[in-house]
Amino acid sequence: MTEYRPVTPAVADELRAIVGERYVIYGDPERMLPYAYDEAAGEEHAHLPEVVVKPRSADEISRIMRLANRERIPVTPRGAGSGLSCGAVPVYGGILLSLERMNRILEIDRENMVAVVEPGVVTNDINEAVREYGLFYAGYPMSVETCFIGGNVAENAGGGRAIKYGVTGHHVLGLEVVLPTGEIVRLGGKRVKDVTGYDLIHLMVGSEGTLGIFTQVILRLLPLPRERVVLLVPFPDVPTAIGAVPRIVAQGRMLPAAVEFMDRLSVQTAYDFIGERPPHPDIGAMLLIEVDGYTREQVEAEYDAVVEVCLEAGALDVYVGDNPATARRMWRPRQSLAEAFKVVSPVQSLEDIVVPLAQIPALMPELERLSRKYDVLIPCYGHAGDGNLHATVIKRPETPMGVWEERLPEVLTELYEVVARLGGTISGEHGIGSKRAVYLPLVMDPVLIELQRRIKRVFDPLNILNPGKIFPV
Amino acid sequence: MTEYRPVTPAVADELRAIVGERYVIYGDPERMLPYAYDEAAGEEHAHLPEVVVKPRSADEISRIMRLANRERIPVTPRGAGSGLSCGAVPVYGGILLSLERMNRILEIDRENMVAVVEPGVVTNDINEAVREYGLFYAGYPMSVETCFIGGNVAENAGGGRAIKYGVTGHHVLGLEVVLPTGEIVRLGGKRVKDVTGYDLIHLMVGSEGTLGIFTQVILRLLPLPRERVVLLVPFPDVPTAIGAVPRIVAQGRMLPAAVEFMDRLSVQTAYDFIGERPPHPDIGAMLLIEVDGYTREQVEAEYDAVVEVCLEAGALDVYVGDNPATARRMWRPRQSLAEAFKVVSPVQSLEDIVVPLAQIPALMPELERLSRKYDVLIPCYGHAGDGNLHATVIKRPETPMGVWEERLPEVLTELYEVVARLGGTISGEHGIGSKRAVYLPLVMDPVLIELQRRIKRVFDPLNILNPGKIFPV
Repeated sequence: MTEYRPVTPAVADELRAIVGERYVIYGDPERMLPYAYDEAAGEEHAHLPEVVVKPRSADEISRIMRLANRERIPVTPRGAGSGLSCGAVPVYGGILLSLERMNRILEIDRENMVAVVEPGVVTNDINEAVREYGLFYAGYPMSVETCFIGGNVAENAGGGRAIKYGVTGHHVLGLEVVLPTGEIVRLGGKRVKDVTGYDLIHLMVGSEGTLGIFTQVILRLLPLPRERVVLLVPFPDVPTAIGAVPRIVAQGRMLPAAVEFMDRLSVQTAYDFIGERPPHPDIGAMLLIEVDGYTREQVEAEYDAVVEVCLEAGALDVYVGDNPATARRMWRPRQSLAEAFKVVSPVQSLEDIVVPLAQIPALMPELERLSRKYDVLIPCYGHAGDGNLHATVIKRPETPMGVWEERLPEVLTELYEVVARLGGTISGEHGIGSKRAVYLPLVMDPVLIELQRRIKRVFDPLNILNPGKIFPV
Repeated sequence: MTEYRPVTPAVADELRAIVGERYVIYGDPERMLPYAYDEAAGEEHAHLPEVVVKPRSADEISRIMRLANRERIPVTPRGAGSGLSCGAVPVYGGILLSLERMNRILEIDRENMVAVVEPGVVTNDINEAVREYGLFYAGYPMSVETCFIGGNVAENAGGGRAIKYGVTGHHVLGLEVVLPTGEIVRLGGKRVKDVTGYDLIHLMVGSEGTLGIFTQVILRLLPLPRERVVLLVPFPDVPTAIGAVPRIVAQGRMLPAAVEFMDRLSVQTAYDFIGERPPHPDIGAMLLIEVDGYTREQVEAEYDAVVEVCLEAGALDVYVGDNPATARRMWRPRQSLAEAFKVVSPVQSLEDIVVPLAQIPALMPELERLSRKYDVLIPCYGHAGDGNLHATVIKRPETPMGVWEERLPEVLTELYEVVARLGGTISGEHGIGSKRAVYLPLVMDPVLIELQRRIKRVFDPLNILNPGKIFPV
């Protein structure tokens, strides 16, 4: 275990010399406070950095990393801070390296259909920039309007469209990376195929900022679908709703762009929050299905097939949103869910467990059992198409904080054990970070954890880059 | 560097005790001879193993690996031997571990849309097995009827359909792996999303049998396209043909299932070989474009768009194969190309360089220059959709072997330097193996090579598993 050293005024001066006076925050806790958090970190996970630096280039980052190694100071890279596993929280203090200034779209290469971007570009801005060329970037985390692409790559972000388009990693063709020891290397390039040596790109993708700092990302672009239809489908209960999903794909012979799921509690809470009535009185679960494509004929044929399969599978009804206004309205309850549950109780643990699709019906009674046993709410919603569910453990307003704090680790332990038993895992898209590190051994063979620790050491012998993440201390 | 020890009769006896008398070949060079080669290895690359073993389970393989570590004997895993980089050639002798008996499809899980298979299953057999359920496995190397899925995973095989469906790794959701040190571990599972720790699955995929031996593969299945149309499109020259490709995707707003390219020499040779006339007298290059989809309407709309774009882009004509018989006939020249060139001269080096799509026109005059400079043929064909080209360096029949053997390394060195300069790399789908190991430094930063060597050591401290591959000695 590395003994870390403090950030002294002399080190702060060196940092100022590297990035410029304006881009260092030191000795000013108030201005550093926003960098102590991410979207998941409550008081118990937050941690103030000793210094915040905002470099503008790979070269500056390289010099910072060499300094950090020389001085044994931990470095925590940070994108937009929209992460949900405390991955950008500087749990050992040290240097918080914010990538907010590296926010340029460097190139839109239409002929090769790639975009070259810096890590601090807001994901949605990429799509705004390439739309006019009939192209799009298919990565689609739910926080697309605030998150940075660099964070998406670091966490291998998923989102609602992974069933058809895959997760972030599917679209990353190349990376420029500053290694923990300061070398600047380039992986991959403007090519879809590459088997020259080990796949270091996808070792970097999802490594949660522990193996390198991305300074450029080469993204594959796809032709932009011109047509899009949303179907809102109420079901009487969870098994019926989930049972419809594989049938949509196999029997309907198509891949929807998204299949979102909401259980009864999620439906009620969401519609209460937006002040509307749920679409059916007997609703026990709901699917929100998006179909996209390049021609009207295709999308119509595909959504006809979905409607037919859903009704056959026991749907109570099917509502079709075939224009942008209706589609937006249908997505509203799903999109407001996280906020809606925060109103019920701001104290909660947003989870993103994954189970094989066909195991979702077996998962639901377990969630009910856990919520009774521990007297918490556990609504469940998320990306049914890929079995990635945001089962959210929520404190009842009347439960005292002390009781909740004692209970939560027990709930999570038991939840993760259930997930593992069903063939799933504890994080599909949010990452382990510092939030779930202690739980990793519940779902992972110690041999694999040890291999990963050793891979980490290959890249970062002094454990300088984002320590305290992924691996239990 | 490990000093390897020979396979003694006592070791052979131990191997017999593990896998059974019948499944060990020892002291019988004639029966071992087929295991000295793969599809790329001529005499200069072939190497006899000291013993061939054919295990039936992960447990047997685990015991073999522990024995090999104890005795310091190299182990080379082998699938169907259809590889094109000498990856399965036992360059240090030792144990050849053939996976031919591990050839069961263990499970077709329709609800979760995955297949669980052993490594020795012929790739095409997976599709034969899942077709009746309206599903398919989208990995598609050209050798699909002979190669094993385990080899596809080890090499991250590509093929013609990667432009739409991605390479093998895109479809691998889980692996059971015997590590070089003998532990049996499971990675991933029946889930599309998983960010629990580093992406060891995709570190294994494409690792060319150097990091582990796969004993089970969990593959994602997709709904089977019902409709398929092939377009054969002659162009006057290479730049016009290649220029059409990005326009098909961006302007046509669709992803073809395949875009194959053949230069003039390839077209002539292929049509001569099958005894037909090329489809147009002024042909300077040809594209073969496949469009697939779930509805007739979609496929028709898409191929109409392709036809329009191709004609606008300067195609001489467009031939449409919209029934299986015509489609098969159109594919014949492309599929017979490797054989056709072997007839011209069996002495050749089949390459699979990659360049960014838009650089293909810049590559072609370089190939012409090299073929003149070194007096060799370098026809070029392959997967234009992803820039992966089988530029094949072919000995002229009249060139003496001695001259060829001296010249080939120079041609390859210069070819790879050209490719690197154009932003490409030396292998898109065949791998480095022992065939290209010496050339790796031409396209890869020494820092990255050293990192990979150290990753290899993390998994395989004694360098027992498939030594002599990927990394230059």
